[in-house]
Amino acid sequence: MEQLRIPGPTPLPPEVMQAISRQMINHRGPEFHKIFQDITEKIKVFFQTKNDLLILTCAGTGGLEAAIVNFFSPGDKILGVSIGVFGDRFISIAKTYGANVIPLKFEMGQAANPEAVKKVLQDNPDVKGVIITHNETSTSVTNDLKTIAPIVKDAGKLLVVDGVSSIGSIDLPVDELKIDVAISGSQKGWMVPPGMVMLSVSQEAWQAYANAKMPRFYLDLGKAKDKLAKWENPWTPAVSIIFGFQVALDMMLKEGIQNIFARHALIAKTAREGLKELGLTLLVKDEKIASNTVTGVMGTNGLDTKKLTQIMRDQYKIVLAGGQGALEGKIFRIGHLGYVSVEDITDVIANLKLALPQAGFTR
Amino acid sequence: MEQLRIPGPTPLPPEVMQAISRQMINHRGPEFHKIFQDITEKIKVFFQTKNDLLILTCAGTGGLEAAIVNFFSPGDKILGVSIGVFGDRFISIAKTYGANVIPLKFEMGQAANPEAVKKVLQDNPDVKGVIITHNETSTSVTNDLKTIAPIVKDAGKLLVVDGVSSIGSIDLPVDELKIDVAISGSQKGWMVPPGMVMLSVSQEAWQAYANAKMPRFYLDLGKAKDKLAKWENPWTPAVSIIFGFQVALDMMLKEGIQNIFARHALIAKTAREGLKELGLTLLVKDEKIASNTVTGVMGTNGLDTKKLTQIMRDQYKIVLAGGQGALEGKIFRIGHLGYVSVEDITDVIANLKLALPQAGFTR
Repeated sequence: MEQLRIPGPTPLPPEVMQAISRQMINHRGPEFHKIFQDITEKIKVFFQTKNDLLILTCAGTGGLEAAIVNFFSPGDKILGVSIGVFGDRFISIAKTYGANVIPLKFEMGQAANPEAVKKVLQDNPDVKGVIITHNETSTSVTNDLKTIAPIVKDAGKLLVVDGVSSIGSIDLPVDELKIDVAISGSQKGWMVPPGMVMLSVSQEAWQAYANAKMPRFYLDLGKAKDKLAKWENPWTPAVSIIFGFQVALDMMLKEGIQNIFARHALIAKTAREGLKELGLTLLVKDEKIASNTVTGVMGTNGLDTKKLTQIMRDQYKIVLAGGQGALEGKIFRIGHLGYVSVEDITDVIANLKLALPQAGFTR
Repeated sequence: MEQLRIPGPTPLPPEVMQAISRQMINHRGPEFHKIFQDITEKIKVFFQTKNDLLILTCAGTGGLEAAIVNFFSPGDKILGVSIGVFGDRFISIAKTYGANVIPLKFEMGQAANPEAVKKVLQDNPDVKGVIITHNETSTSVTNDLKTIAPIVKDAGKLLVVDGVSSIGSIDLPVDELKIDVAISGSQKGWMVPPGMVMLSVSQEAWQAYANAKMPRFYLDLGKAKDKLAKWENPWTPAVSIIFGFQVALDMMLKEGIQNIFARHALIAKTAREGLKELGLTLLVKDEKIASNTVTGVMGTNGLDTKKLTQIMRDQYKIVLAGGQGALEGKIFRIGHLGYVSVEDITDVIANLKLALPQAGFTR
């Protein structure tokens, strides 16, 4: 059995695997209504929000698209903060739908500089909203939203946060930070298969929705909200994933939100320290911005990262991720979110110790 | 255990339930590549096509949207043939993205008149494409695509067919009919859970794609095609549903495409005759256009269709569907597609015989 240590899809607990294998039910019937209400309310606990929480059947990228097309019009000026592949993708989606994006890009491995965000907003009072990644999966950097969110909200802008690989694993208090739209994806910290995204939508965001002119149909959150009054989806939802969610959310509630955050922090620290002890160089030098759900490691000291991930998979049965975008072939990444323990990560480190010399690494 | 007799989601065979409960794997790894190639090639057998076959993570409506936004530009004139709720939805999507739609609507329960399609195309030589439903789930009517397709193609138009609830269950030879874009959905005749759609795309459609200006990102079929070269999806796909597909498709291949079509035809005939013997009135009088995947029954002779579906569910553990759109409260529908047998349907009829008087029906 392979150990899946990529930043999504993440391993499923046995309870979830059993839950998703249930027979189909009517997605317009009373049993479904009860389940959909249950998961909607419990997901909100981990979003730390009282805002509306909508569920769509799509990948995380579909969630990012929904977060753009529902709240903006062609020509709207958007500040697009990017610290990697997923920030760039968010900007690309906004541009595709005709937004006038001011890109604010930081070097891969760096976090967004709050002062730089503030400066762009001061220089561009006509910016309507800010789109920003909370946890950049491609670089294993977590942006300091607790500092950036007040800057955006004090400037009166709509704040749209890609929390796909953080919410439910890393603290992102949506209401406390006044985040207008936050997005997460089922296949990350939630311990269920890919195929669903969840978005929280503030009252201010709904006001923007009312005037937003970008075209939308399948990803229309207003339609999703209308149907939610009956605890339904406008379109046939991914019923089996919803079954999985019900069980996974109960496991998450039992563990407790603060314990989950602490576990992810401990696992990430274990990963980083173990990797450094092996003589490896982390992509993210500053511990304060290092992600608690994924860790990127550089191909230093002769290390061929592509060869390493192959050896780890084929010989040690541990599946790691490579680099994305400009970092392809230059880093490898360990995913450590969702159904994962400290032991799982010490096991990865122990096996890396054996595999590294085979992939050219010398201390 | 309830018997699910709605036109999707449809019941899962035990083999599929087991398959979808597998542990996650890397969606960018060699095992996934093999599985994705396998299902892509086998799905093409049931589309009866050598065209490209793309898989997206979304509901059927997302598939319809993909079939619009990838091949048309705002202002393009589209003939939108509708015989019910899903035809209307197809038109709504096209309008949402700025198409200039000529709606050609037929009464619910009727099929599209091929001569009327021909006439509109003759009167409007600037029509770029025709969007049409093959099997209209809301009315249980199957359009005569074998007559209509040549009319559309002889006129040189792009032919886009919603085969969500027909392909894999009812004969729709995509290549023989020169259908440019055909769409189906996982939760229909394919015996797998909802969450994935499949689209075939002809060379002519790809030429249209190259010039199509409607905005698209998540549903961009060009991106899907690019990634298919590596047997991947551009975004994280619904891995568990893909596991289910692999097993379901092997079951379908074992049964054989013609046998599957014949089984659906026999089951539908059994349903229609059984219902008529009970004194019920079918929505579709003309046997030639009656669907082989779903049957709509009218609320005649005092029958309260809403009450009937409740009684059938609560007392007889058989889940039927109500009417949609203008037919809400006026009909009930029996889904008979995918993992279903003649016995399943005779069982529905036997239970209906008991339930009908309880719902006000008198002969």
